[in-house]
Amino acid sequence: MPKLTFWFEFASTYSYLSVLRIEAMAAEAGVAIDWRPFLLGPIFRAQGWETSPFNLYPAKGRYMVRDIERIAEARGLVFRMPDPFPQNGLSAARLATLGVGEGWVAPFTLAVYTAEFAEGRNISEPEVLAEILEKVGVAAGPAFEAAGRGEIKERLRAATEEAIGLGIFGAPSFVTDDGELFWGDDRLAAALAYTASVSRSS
Amino acid sequence: MPKLTFWFEFASTYSYLSVLRIEAMAAEAGVAIDWRPFLLGPIFRAQGWETSPFNLYPAKGRYMVRDIERIAEARGLVFRMPDPFPQNGLSAARLATLGVGEGWVAPFTLAVYTAEFAEGRNISEPEVLAEILEKVGVAAGPAFEAAGRGEIKERLRAATEEAIGLGIFGAPSFVTDDGELFWGDDRLAAALAYTASVSRSS
Repeated sequence: MPKLTFWFEFASTYSYLSVLRIEAMAAEAGVAIDWRPFLLGPIFRAQGWETSPFNLYPAKGRYMVRDIERIAEARGLVFRMPDPFPQNGLSAARLATLGVGEGWVAPFTLAVYTAEFAEGRNISEPEVLAEILEKVGVAAGPAFEAAGRGEIKERLRAATEEAIGLGIFGAPSFVTDDGELFWGDDRLAAALAYTASVSRSS
Repeated sequence: MPKLTFWFEFASTYSYLSVLRIEAMAAEAGVAIDWRPFLLGPIFRAQGWETSPFNLYPAKGRYMVRDIERIAEARGLVFRMPDPFPQNGLSAARLATLGVGEGWVAPFTLAVYTAEFAEGRNISEPEVLAEILEKVGVAAGPAFEAAGRGEIKERLRAATEEAIGLGIFGAPSFVTDDGELFWGDDRLAAALAYTASVSRSS
């Protein structure tokens, strides 16, 4: 099955939209999804941004909320802006990095985004993450212990470096095996179609 | 017929995509388009940007080119990046502002964007603009004379202020009569659908 890599950042509002629908759309397109957590913070800081562009540019921030509200209504989803925004997603990203190796990244990530953007919970809190881990069948204690190791921290740092090398500057991003980058939930369908068509023609 | 206001900036690459298709899509949706030139320069400068964000953030700029190349290919369009980018669209915007009052803003704007993004011409040059004016049936001399008057300059400045008041921060933008803002060529279909549905339910 052709593969599309899904780069997501836990603080990203538009990533929420993709997390909720990517597996269903990928199944329909006959594409496998490779879930890849990374951090936008270092990428934003490298271009002089100390917080989300939606905070730095208030008109853009207000628009983003309304845009997602309209999309959520059209798709029948719940959406609420987290408080504070952006959430600190470092612990979630380390756990998700562990989950990539252990096979539970997708259900864990879906549950984290739902807690953050539908239930209004603070995903930087260990209790919230522990509850989510248990809900998706992962023992929280060992997962926290493993996610805190240098190896996982290093793997997440390396993922962020790899993202920069692929030209990624925002989330969600989708990258095909031949290096095509698609940015934004509104490019998900095009990314899947491209992936499926390259596979058919090769 | 319900109305959607189309806010465009002549330097904007994604505005090109909308300029080419908005009238056909609007006709299909039963919506009238109100063409509104404005300037992004003052809006960008107010947030500390002295040039296009696609120049300030090179990864985003490279992505934008590839994204539009893919879209252009899918829609069967020619697209080339102008040199220099961004183009100085001030004269074109003043002429278009004149054209709003005189009824030729749509064909003039379409011809300017085509010259800029398909033919690689420099739209800051008076000869280029004169040729375009004549092509769409407008006498160039009187148009330049009228577009250089204080009244037109002031009308364009006021349009840019109005855009800021509507929450506009980029182009293309689409604003409904009840104040809904849609940003980006990828929101054009949603903007038209919204406009048509509000009209049907009122």
